[in-house]
Amino acid sequence: MAESITPRSQDYSEWYVDIVLKAQLADYSPVKGTMVIRPRGYALWERMQSALDAMFKETGHQNAYFPLLIPESFLQKEAEHVEGFAPECAVVTHGGGEKLDEPLVIRPTSETIIWSMYKKWIQSYRDLPLLINQWANVLRWEKRTRLFLRTTEFLWQEGHTAHASAEEAREETLRMLEVYRRFAEEYMAIPVLTGAKSESEKFAGAIDTYAIEAMMQDRKALQAGTSHFLGQNFAKAFDVTFQSADGQLEHVWATSWGVSTRLIGALIMAHSDDNGLVVPPKLAPTQAVIVPIYKNDNKAEVLEYAARIRGELPDSIRCVFDDDENNSPGWKFAEWELVGVPVRIEIGPRDMEKGQAVLVRRDTGEKTTVAAREVASRVGALLEEIQASLFERAKAFRDENTHEIDDYEQMKTVLNGDGGFVIAPWDGDPAGEARIKEDTKATIRVLPFGNEDRASGKRCIVSGNPAKHIAVFARAY
Amino acid sequence: MAESITPRSQDYSEWYVDIVLKAQLADYSPVKGTMVIRPRGYALWERMQSALDAMFKETGHQNAYFPLLIPESFLQKEAEHVEGFAPECAVVTHGGGEKLDEPLVIRPTSETIIWSMYKKWIQSYRDLPLLINQWANVLRWEKRTRLFLRTTEFLWQEGHTAHASAEEAREETLRMLEVYRRFAEEYMAIPVLTGAKSESEKFAGAIDTYAIEAMMQDRKALQAGTSHFLGQNFAKAFDVTFQSADGQLEHVWATSWGVSTRLIGALIMAHSDDNGLVVPPKLAPTQAVIVPIYKNDNKAEVLEYAARIRGELPDSIRCVFDDDENNSPGWKFAEWELVGVPVRIEIGPRDMEKGQAVLVRRDTGEKTTVAAREVASRVGALLEEIQASLFERAKAFRDENTHEIDDYEQMKTVLNGDGGFVIAPWDGDPAGEARIKEDTKATIRVLPFGNEDRASGKRCIVSGNPAKHIAVFARAY
Repeated sequence: MAESITPRSQDYSEWYVDIVLKAQLADYSPVKGTMVIRPRGYALWERMQSALDAMFKETGHQNAYFPLLIPESFLQKEAEHVEGFAPECAVVTHGGGEKLDEPLVIRPTSETIIWSMYKKWIQSYRDLPLLINQWANVLRWEKRTRLFLRTTEFLWQEGHTAHASAEEAREETLRMLEVYRRFAEEYMAIPVLTGAKSESEKFAGAIDTYAIEAMMQDRKALQAGTSHFLGQNFAKAFDVTFQSADGQLEHVWATSWGVSTRLIGALIMAHSDDNGLVVPPKLAPTQAVIVPIYKNDNKAEVLEYAARIRGELPDSIRCVFDDDENNSPGWKFAEWELVGVPVRIEIGPRDMEKGQAVLVRRDTGEKTTVAAREVASRVGALLEEIQASLFERAKAFRDENTHEIDDYEQMKTVLNGDGGFVIAPWDGDPAGEARIKEDTKATIRVLPFGNEDRASGKRCIVSGNPAKHIAVFARAY
Repeated sequence: MAESITPRSQDYSEWYVDIVLKAQLADYSPVKGTMVIRPRGYALWERMQSALDAMFKETGHQNAYFPLLIPESFLQKEAEHVEGFAPECAVVTHGGGEKLDEPLVIRPTSETIIWSMYKKWIQSYRDLPLLINQWANVLRWEKRTRLFLRTTEFLWQEGHTAHASAEEAREETLRMLEVYRRFAEEYMAIPVLTGAKSESEKFAGAIDTYAIEAMMQDRKALQAGTSHFLGQNFAKAFDVTFQSADGQLEHVWATSWGVSTRLIGALIMAHSDDNGLVVPPKLAPTQAVIVPIYKNDNKAEVLEYAARIRGELPDSIRCVFDDDENNSPGWKFAEWELVGVPVRIEIGPRDMEKGQAVLVRRDTGEKTTVAAREVASRVGALLEEIQASLFERAKAFRDENTHEIDDYEQMKTVLNGDGGFVIAPWDGDPAGEARIKEDTKATIRVLPFGNEDRASGKRCIVSGNPAKHIAVFARAY
């Protein structure tokens, strides 16, 4: 029940866990570090998948499926990749009752197994570009886990593309970053910053990593998706070459990009409140709930009236009619708020008499009384308003908590105080980046596109040397 | 290219592998026993998933996701279950660089992990029924593998439901068997027999296993889906009880049911021919392909005319316009036959002059010339005809190759000769079943519903004792 959610002001982490567990989005599983995604959480993932999958297909990608198990030796073929991922791997040493000749790791990501196949499939420039995505589970052994945000096993999609030129691969990398930005902003109603990662935050094996970064309600950053330009690293590791249009044998250029069930954590943390989940209408499995309010002497009439209103809602609005007799209207209000249904339609005897209904917004609590014949159009409009206003509210919050700073003491005060995003000049030196992390626990979340131009003439916030970048710093999930 | 497919008459197994590889449905992966599902194969799986998922939701089920890794001790809680599955498990002994305290197995099926969660979620009859499905990968270590039909890792869905009574669980078991039958017959165009499995062919841990069984073109049987009544076996193993409406504490009743990427193998083997894949229109990722035929001097006009016809096809028909200049029409015909597109639309200069187009059925090769304005409606009708006629053809083939036999010598002659389904009386004794298997390699595929009634007065084909069942015997995949 809603009343038992820890308020955000009291303990933000507890609040988050309360929502996940009490709204039955996920549960702890008996295997340390893993979770069960319960039907209400999975329904959110299904809607995310469906929107993203359509966007991937519109941009020419096809889905495929590659094996879960990868020979340990494959990881070792790309030096940075093995260094980054080997320590996080789960290792299968026995199969079918026998010890295996070579241990197999459960995929932490699939570059190596996929590029071993691309070697078979790519011979000529005519085979390129190869634009493949997979929806899959992956496993990264984690010491400190948190439901949805960081679990040993998670669900994700990973795109792996092969191209004839660096330029084309770079375009693809940015195209998919843009797909992620659009998805985050238009579906999840979460404004995101886009840009490159610094060397220390790059994907193991990438030339460049780009990310979308969101701000949560506790002002911490959350990396919500990444897109990597891999250069020829994996093509060289797996010797994947193609004959170019002019007959040369060249190594293939690569990208990879992914988002995961972590997005569900981002969704919760960006919009929800002390009464429970708040879900943007486009991703809400149920968009509206009708709660009839009656006594024994007017039950039949109210139910009939409410059913008539329900019948007028178009199929495009995902609506539930809650006529369960075991629970009171008050209990239902709290329950549907807890699970984040965007619009509640209350219909009581007075509404029946006056030929009206009461619409209640989940995000603001605002109530409107509308005539029965206007319910359908008003609910439709309200869903759009809520979608837009969740985004605007999140954006205003982020902007309020984003600070351009050029004094290191002030930066430390902000990051060790209320937090938020700090925009500051940086000279590109990893030593300074490390010092900031030590002093404030903040990392560079993103080097925004075109930031180098804006850095000219400025001094690095930590070293005082000429700045090369304007970077965004924050503590992060 | 189509010409290099081994004919079925020469080597049925080679024919199958040729189609899988040459139509690029799947490929061998570097990890023994596993495969890569390539985009063309995965597109079939996506269409199957989408149809099945809708049927599961219509029958009240919700999707969820449970962890990949299961503590080894969980399997051991159900005696038959561990005996059946432990020998097939892949075992994770190390994670995050350390040896694990308890080895984890990769799920071969998820009853144990799911019932460990149901214990947390089920307290009262109000929590029942619990109707959950998951789409996931599973792993069963196999010595002899075959693309799609039997691989160490495969994709599937597994439904796991919990009920307050045996009767309700039995109803659910049969409801889902019926969903599978409808899917096989209405979407895959494959007629199936339904019924129970004998003791020796049951799921490890089930009270009763029911299956849908199909006949392939080599007259062998293929188990295409199973639905299990699990009784209280898993509820007892994991101590899952509920308070009934009248206040008693009782163990919960269970079912589980699943179909897998094996269905893709069934689809191929049921309908395809020596030119490649034949796909029923409802599952075909591409339902129609337009191949324009032109020379340099009429190219622009033919392409424009063909594009006009394409423009008149409704969006509901999944159509590709193949105007690739690098390949000849003949090459394209063979290629689109290889991948199994149900209808080819040929449009050449003569067709343009006469205001017509030529429709070619993939399944029969039959050509029809139709007026341009009728192409849209004719293609739509043809897709329905093909869907129906693939089913009728497969059914006629199965019926022709199904023999009611009551003499053991004749049974052996049939099963060791051309094969097919043999319907014969059986006394229910596993010893006789084992002898038949030894003599013919055939197993009981199914004990059809109501078969016991028809057995009365008959004698067992192998022992001569009074028969208890009329069983269907066949060699199987």
